[in-house]
Amino acid sequence: MKHRISVLSILIFMLFSSHLSATTREYWVAAEKVDWNYAPAGKNMIKPKMGMSVWGKQLIYKKYRYIGYTDGSYSTRTIQPEWMGILGPQFRAVEGDTFKIHFYNKADKPLSIHPHGMRYDEQNEGADMKGEGAYVLPGKKFTYTWTVDHEAAPGPADPSSIVWVYHSHVDSVTEIYDGLIGSIIVTKKGMERSVDDPRPRDVDVAFTNLYMIFDENGREAIKHTKGKQVHHEIKEHEDEEEGNLMHAINGYVFGNLKGLVAKHGDRVRWHLIGMGTEVDLHTAHWHGKTVLDHGRRTDVVELLPTTMTSVDMLADNPGTWLYHCHVTDHITAGMVTRWTVLPKGK
Amino acid sequence: MKHRISVLSILIFMLFSSHLSATTREYWVAAEKVDWNYAPAGKNMIKPKMGMSVWGKQLIYKKYRYIGYTDGSYSTRTIQPEWMGILGPQFRAVEGDTFKIHFYNKADKPLSIHPHGMRYDEQNEGADMKGEGAYVLPGKKFTYTWTVDHEAAPGPADPSSIVWVYHSHVDSVTEIYDGLIGSIIVTKKGMERSVDDPRPRDVDVAFTNLYMIFDENGREAIKHTKGKQVHHEIKEHEDEEEGNLMHAINGYVFGNLKGLVAKHGDRVRWHLIGMGTEVDLHTAHWHGKTVLDHGRRTDVVELLPTTMTSVDMLADNPGTWLYHCHVTDHITAGMVTRWTVLPKGK
Amino acid sequence: MKHRISVLSILIFMLFSSHLSATTREYWVAAEKVDWNYAPAGKNMIKPKMGMSVWGKQLIYKKYRYIGYTDGSYSTRTIQPEWMGILGPQFRAVEGDTFKIHFYNKADKPLSIHPHGMRYDEQNEGADMKGEGAYVLPGKKFTYTWTVDHEAAPGPADPSSIVWVYHSHVDSVTEIYDGLIGSIIVTKKGMERSVDDPRPRDVDVAFTNLYMIFDENGREAIKHTKGKQVHHEIKEHEDEEEGNLMHAINGYVFGNLKGLVAKHGDRVRWHLIGMGTEVDLHTAHWHGKTVLDHGRRTDVVELLPTTMTSVDMLADNPGTWLYHCHVTDHITAGMVTRWTVLPKGK
Repeated sequence: MKHRISVLSILIFMLFSSHLSATTREYWVAAEKVDWNYAPAGKNMIKPKMGMSVWGKQLIYKKYRYIGYTDGSYSTRTIQPEWMGILGPQFRAVEGDTFKIHFYNKADKPLSIHPHGMRYDEQNEGADMKGEGAYVLPGKKFTYTWTVDHEAAPGPADPSSIVWVYHSHVDSVTEIYDGLIGSIIVTKKGMERSVDDPRPRDVDVAFTNLYMIFDENGREAIKHTKGKQVHHEIKEHEDEEEGNLMHAINGYVFGNLKGLVAKHGDRVRWHLIGMGTEVDLHTAHWHGKTVLDHGRRTDVVELLPTTMTSVDMLADNPGTWLYHCHVTDHITAGMVTRWTVLPKGK
Repeated sequence: MKHRISVLSILIFMLFSSHLSATTREYWVAAEKVDWNYAPAGKNMIKPKMGMSVWGKQLIYKKYRYIGYTDGSYSTRTIQPEWMGILGPQFRAVEGDTFKIHFYNKADKPLSIHPHGMRYDEQNEGADMKGEGAYVLPGKKFTYTWTVDHEAAPGPADPSSIVWVYHSHVDSVTEIYDGLIGSIIVTKKGMERSVDDPRPRDVDVAFTNLYMIFDENGREAIKHTKGKQVHHEIKEHEDEEEGNLMHAINGYVFGNLKGLVAKHGDRVRWHLIGMGTEVDLHTAHWHGKTVLDHGRRTDVVELLPTTMTSVDMLADNPGTWLYHCHVTDHITAGMVTRWTVLPKGK
Repeated sequence: MKHRISVLSILIFMLFSSHLSATTREYWVAAEKVDWNYAPAGKNMIKPKMGMSVWGKQLIYKKYRYIGYTDGSYSTRTIQPEWMGILGPQFRAVEGDTFKIHFYNKADKPLSIHPHGMRYDEQNEGADMKGEGAYVLPGKKFTYTWTVDHEAAPGPADPSSIVWVYHSHVDSVTEIYDGLIGSIIVTKKGMERSVDDPRPRDVDVAFTNLYMIFDENGREAIKHTKGKQVHHEIKEHEDEEEGNLMHAINGYVFGNLKGLVAKHGDRVRWHLIGMGTEVDLHTAHWHGKTVLDHGRRTDVVELLPTTMTSVDMLADNPGTWLYHCHVTDHITAGMVTRWTVLPKGK
């Protein structure tokens, strides 16, 4: 009986609450061309004496990014935590909400925003050359409307919030490598902190990490930057090609991803995204603590291109610990950083 | 108490029903040499202006296939839905049933049928050179007997039906690339529509998709076809080799897989199979709708070689949507098609 | 109510039993340089007529291994089952126990033991150059203390015991390929056979298998062995390089892994570990029986580098059956063996 009552009360709660609290979440996002530095510290922060091998020869590339703004004047950028790196602004909602994503293409080619997981019609899909949203010309704007329906929300085996990825989808392969990638977090109905704060009540801090090898070989973005510091041509020597494969977590290599800090006792949710091509099989591994991955206890989470998964950790072991892809060639190439659990009381 | 009663009633039901409804399912299958066209439309149906790049230079190859027949005269072929493509006939059963698979090797080399998931003895394994079933000579026949026991049926976390793959296993690697692959669907006891229709009651339409890069380089099947339209020699130029890697879903590339159509409101089950080698990490991705994958909400399902998994979707968002592998090199190589949800009332 | 009572009684049981039965498990382990033969039989045991192709040209390599000893005199080796192959000694504990791992570096370079899953402080992590345990000089000893806490134990969706891997982590990439890898099994509190026997009560026999392609090209270990039988230089010819990629299960190729034998009716647990780099996507596949993988019924389990997973099988189908990676290039390269279910009464 206990189970039946729970289901009934949830259904009743949803019927009432959906009218009371369903919310439209607005975000303003521009696509912009930027210089991106995969290692702002200019060195290997994990093993300083080792250097960065072929991957250290060229660190700054011309990229495109989604940049968040506070309103439709597109004058004030939203502030992102340091650990978000190259990722676009994070869109957050509760099951039942609606997104209004105002997109302004400030870059030099047609772009779009295509979301995973959301419910959209053809006009708002941002892909497949269908509807206005699929092909936003430079200088133009488009507002996407996406419904965060039940089937965009956590499933029965998922934790209280899950991650979806969004990316440009005019020429999706090119634009993924451009850097036009961001994340969406959807919280299960009833698990939000409040109407205004869609983050889940059972999580203290959440991080979102994109594991992707950015292939900078022959990138179009680079060809426009002759004579500048950022300059690159494809070379025939294999090392040159390898050195342009930036094995990044959130766009950073060799420990340059910073800010992954939890307080002692924090319930941490790690939202993980894989992306890329055949070399992009990744295995996220934490030292210091294990995670619960859909009921499975592990400290290694498997990611293939466009895997989106969310796992939970209790951060109760103080220290600064390695956090890296466990694929050996990726360790060598710098897909490594550290995360920290502060001592009690800090 | 509720749970205990349910388990008891299921057990009682199974004791009675297994004698009443356990069924022998007979299928007649021949292995035959065929010409296979990876893109019958002769063009890129997704982005027509893009063409098919190196993968368009050669579209027809000599393959082997499993062909279904209506009876032991092997005169009338069974009709397959268009979306089944290169796959052999689908064998369907309910937990507790027995398969009798009558195999007729109409091809030019020894072949077999080896099933995943089924219970067999050495005589009926169709592999490892053991028993008659492991090595059926050209022109010969063999009837495989497989038991669909409890451990061939859906597990507690699985949906009401699951997919298994079968393939030839004399020289399994060669024969998988030959095209000698098919699928088996097993429905959980009690979930079948009727004794005569083993399909599950909680599903309206089901599709089975094989994600596999057919490596046509140096294929034996090709060497027998000199002087014909279907003609191929390994070239040293890398593009030639790449162009013979056919990044196919059910044997079709660049939107040539057709017939993935659901009615509005259909409960759709997608049976997914991966196959192949180190390049065959695939991530099946639907636009338009998400799926429930063992309790996990997602729109991307990970497949490694010989992964077999079944996921569920509610097809209530009308439109024609992209459906593709999300590995970037595979998008470029044409591992893409579309699926459709009809408008209400159609 | 039933569930609430169960949870309460488990909690009460744990409060009492943790003081009664929490145990310190001691192991003595040395790192040693050894000659390792990937195919002691000297031939392809699966398809004898096929031979071992390029992988048969060189079978013995200089490796490092973790060797178990019975006590601190390091004079008597512990006996390992034949199927353990190159793996180091298996550390076994119950949730709540503590490990004391006495490590003696008898090799010629600094090494360590870094465990997955366990709780440790920086001194005992065995990695990241932190603390004494991270860098044990040749001829030196260090005792690691690891806590087998709740978050090292099986999760709610896991079976009653799970596997973790341990490996050296001074230069982890090099040392993984050296062969410095072993396993840890943790049994859920209350599921152990007895205080002295931490193995789970609901399992009759367990096997632990490491799927990893040992890349012997340019291995340091080899450079020290000039003039001996074990001798290797990197060649430019691609076949030479390929032939040094040893596609091994527990360090054996082409059916040379032996001892995977179950009695009729045994409840078998297969602990599976992936390891390596981009080529190391593996799909463990059994002929003869299926497994239950976290509630999913299958006969293929996906492994990426450092995946650790445990699946269950009922061994009730007598015979000697193939057991192999289902990635086609890996079948060709010998990542294949056989396992056996004895007839009733044997």
